[in-house]
Parts: sequence; C-alpha cells; structure tokens
Amino acid sequence: MTSNRSEIIAEVNAALEQYLPPETTYPPEIHRAVRYSVFAGGKRLRPLLTLAAAEIFSVPRQHALPAACAIEMIHTYSLIHDDLPAMDNDDYRRGRPANHKVFGEALAILAGDALLTLAFEIVATQAAAYFPAETVVALQREISRASGMAGMIGGQVVDILSEGKPAEAEILDYIHRHKTGALFRCCLRCGALMGQATPAELAALTAFADKVGLAFQIVDDILDITGTASELGKQTGSDVNRQKMTYPALYGLQQAQEKTDSLLEEALLLLEPFGTAAAGLAALARQLVRRRR
Amino acid sequence: MTSNRSEIIAEVNAALEQYLPPETTYPPEIHRAVRYSVFAGGKRLRPLLTLAAAEIFSVPRQHALPAACAIEMIHTYSLIHDDLPAMDNDDYRRGRPANHKVFGEALAILAGDALLTLAFEIVATQAAAYFPAETVVALQREISRASGMAGMIGGQVVDILSEGKPAEAEILDYIHRHKTGALFRCCLRCGALMGQATPAELAALTAFADKVGLAFQIVDDILDITGTASELGKQTGSDVNRQKMTYPALYGLQQAQEKTDSLLEEALLLLEPFGTAAAGLAALARQLVRRRR
Repeated sequence: MTSNRSEIIAEVNAALEQYLPPETTYPPEIHRAVRYSVFAGGKRLRPLLTLAAAEIFSVPRQHALPAACAIEMIHTYSLIHDDLPAMDNDDYRRGRPANHKVFGEALAILAGDALLTLAFEIVATQAAAYFPAETVVALQREISRASGMAGMIGGQVVDILSEGKPAEAEILDYIHRHKTGALFRCCLRCGALMGQATPAELAALTAFADKVGLAFQIVDDILDITGTASELGKQTGSDVNRQKMTYPALYGLQQAQEKTDSLLEEALLLLEPFGTAAAGLAALARQLVRRRR
Repeated sequence: MTSNRSEIIAEVNAALEQYLPPETTYPPEIHRAVRYSVFAGGKRLRPLLTLAAAEIFSVPRQHALPAACAIEMIHTYSLIHDDLPAMDNDDYRRGRPANHKVFGEALAILAGDALLTLAFEIVATQAAAYFPAETVVALQREISRASGMAGMIGGQVVDILSEGKPAEAEILDYIHRHKTGALFRCCLRCGALMGQATPAELAALTAFADKVGLAFQIVDDILDITGTASELGKQTGSDVNRQKMTYPALYGLQQAQEKTDSLLEEALLLLEPFGTAAAGLAALARQLVRRRR
C-alpha cells in the first residue's frame, strides 16, 4: 500500500461528502440527520476492507470508492435504526447522542431509509461510471443480498428476538455471521468483483472475510466487557446488562481471546496466494483484530 | 389489453409470492411480518401502471414483473414505516391492524428495511434475466432516485414536519409531487425504460405520470373527507383531525373535484401519440381518478 490508513480514510470521507447532498438541500432536516450520522467519526472499516480487496486486483481507488461508500452508508443506516427505542434503545453512539436523540424518531427512521436507498443510487450512478454494467449489477446483487433478510437484517432480527434469553451457541453464531459477518463478506466480495477475480480468488476472499468478521465481532464483545466508556465512546457493559448473547459471555474472556487469534491466523493464510498485492489487506486485518478500542 | 385487471393483479401476486422467501425461512418472524403487509389486499396500482406502460412498447408482461413488483415492495415498506407511532401513528391499514400493531415496532421497522432492500435485489437478480445489464442499471437508478431523499422520502419528511401547521399551497404541492408522485412517475418511466422508449416518449409518459399522480392524491384526500371507514378500510377524517395539509382542505371539495377531472383530461391527451397501444394505460388512469374508494 502506498497510502497509509488515515490518507485513505480522508479519501473515503471526501467521497462521502461528494455523494451526500449538501445540508441546505430541501428538505434540510433529512440531510442534516443523514450527515450527522455519516460524519460521526466512524472508523470506515468497511470502506477500508473494500478498497484493500480491490487493491489486490489493481483496481484504482477512485473506481472502488462508490461501492466502498455505499456499504458504509448501509452500515450507518443499520446503526441509526438499531439505536431506536423500539430496537436496542441506545442513547449514545460513538460518544455523541444517537441520531434519534438529536432529530427525533421519525427523522431517524427516515434518515436510515434514505441512506439505504442512497447506497443503491450511488452504485447505479457513480460505480457505473467506472465499470461495465454487468459488474454494476453484480455489485447491486451482492450488496442487496448481504444487507437483506438472508444477511444483516436477518442477524438483527434474531439479535432482537433473543434478548433476555439464555445464550445458545448456535443462535450466537447465526447473529455474528449475519449481523456483522454478511456486510464484512460483502466488502471483500465487492472488491473482488470490481477486480474481475476468478471464482477461486472470490472464494478465498469470502472465507477470509468470514474469519476476520467473526474475530472482529468477538473483539467487539470483549471490549464491551473490558473497555471503559471514554475509550469506546459508548456505554460499556450494555450487552451484559441486557443479557445479550455474546461470545465471551458464552465461553469466557480467555477462550474468546484465543479464538480471535486463531481466526486471524487462518485468515492470513488465505491471503498467501495473492502475495504482496494483499499486504494492505493483511495489515488491515491485523489492526482490526488486535485493536484495543 | 388482452387481460383484464384482476387477471393482471393475480399475475402480480403470483410474482410477489415467488420473490418473497417462504414464511418458514429462518428467521420466520421477519418473513411473516413482510408477507403480512405485502399480501394485505393492496390494489397493486403501481405494478399495474408499470405493466401498462411496458405494454405500450410490447414488453412481455413476464419481463416487466420484477420491476413492477420491486416498486410495489417499496410502496409497501413506505406504508409500514409511515404507520409507525413515531411517524403517522396509524393503527389500521387496509382494514387490518397495521404491521407494528401485529409484530411490534422493532419487527415493523425491520420489515420495512427488508422490503426496501429486497426491491433492489429483485431488480438485480430477476429483471437481469430479461434485460441487458445497461437497462437493469437504468432501472436501479430510476427506482433509487424516486424513492430517496429527492423523491418519496423527501415528501414524507415534509409531510411529517408540516403536521399541525396551517396549509400552504407550495408545501402541499411538494408533498404531493414527492410522497406519491415520485413513485407514480417511477412506474411509468421504468415501463418506458424496459421498452427502450425514445427520449420524447419517456418525457410524455413522465408528464402523464405527474398529472395522474397528482389527481390520484387529490382523490385520496377527497375520499378521506367524504368516504366512510368501511368503504376505505381505514379511519376517515384522520387527515382533518391531524390538520394535515390536503388539496380539498386548501381549495374546497368542489374545486378539488374539478382539478382531478382536468388533470385526467390533460394526461389522456399525452397518450394520443401512442395510439391503441396505450389503451390499457388510458383505461387504468380513468379508473384511478374516477374511483370511489
């Protein structure tokens, strides 16, 4: 990778700035609400993953940015809706009041709807400027499936329905693989699709995504227990308080930590056939799994 | 038109049945919630409009069904979210309890999200079986723009924000053109895009959609005042009670009625260049504007 992480994040933010209508666009309330959450200091992990996967195939970053930002929009919409009182009822997100606390529930629901819709518009308009129509349709297929009932939404449904119930390994696994895993997988697969990857390459990156995605989620759950509110910018221990099923709750902190290490190792092995082209993606995976906040 | 309206509606319902995963699909709660609202006795006006527009260009109905059903899914999601307590707070829809009354707010929010997402998946997978990828991308562009912040969502935002305020003609017009009009327009334009319409034909059908869409909304508002609950299957007078801005509230019933007649006449004139190929669409427009419920 010739650019470092903060430079790439700046490019992602600039692209999002360009794709989102200005706050003054009528009706301004919805544009303010959407921008509040999109520019709330997110770590841009999904765009970084998408761009790092595309980089393996020498896709110019400019070309990969629309799909990368579309996935970030879908991630952001899911956070806005998850925080709603009827869902997880979280008042804080990334150290700031949640969208619905600032703009009210109605606008928060609509801001989520708007970001989900805009994600598909950005692919149909911006990605279409760089890729053949067949690739654009493949991206839409990938993104819609990953974020739908067989993917992210399915995970959130099971998460909501299992709150307050005793943790079961099978259910926990389903939630991880769908709520977080499906979109992680989508990032890697979209990068590969933009790079015209072979079926074998696509399969390797899919398996890589599944391992890193699960490790990432477990780290998240560990940090929810061990972290402090100021480090994480949100209430900690909230999962425990609500009896949410998490990996460390089910297996203990020690075993959860070991699991993340072995998942990372397995994931990195899958990148070996790509050689140095995957160095950026490998470095990113290490950062995600070894993060402390 | 060789088929009558109820035959076409049966085809639309069969296609929706095919596109929606069975209720037994895990997690079943979300599939039940989605199907509850999709099969709640909707009149399928948007699919009918899409198919009638496609018919002008001799697009086989089978080919036009995915886009037609995708738009119906987006319409249905918007109703589910609009009915939520934080939004219009309606307990009834089409004579049955609203989605959130049956499944709870969390599942209703997720069911709406799921239908919006599925709409784009159906276009990317099912419409892609019949049309060149360029046409599929054009459909995605059209549908995402029509249902986003510059379209339907923008209309709902202004509608929500203007509740309880005195009616203003300019705001009322914006709400009509966006909340209902944008998706009506999308139906006609998608039909035209699937039919490889010329720019002049596309422009004519867009203007047609705007006139019929406005007339349709005014009829809706008139019926809200004059209809009975049993005829409409929902609470009537509800707009008046909430001081919602409507055309008859602003101009009176008589003038509102005359407006629908003149809009229909202007719309039908726009179809003349298409000759008998547009007979089905013309008949549909007459039914929509002259309906009594």
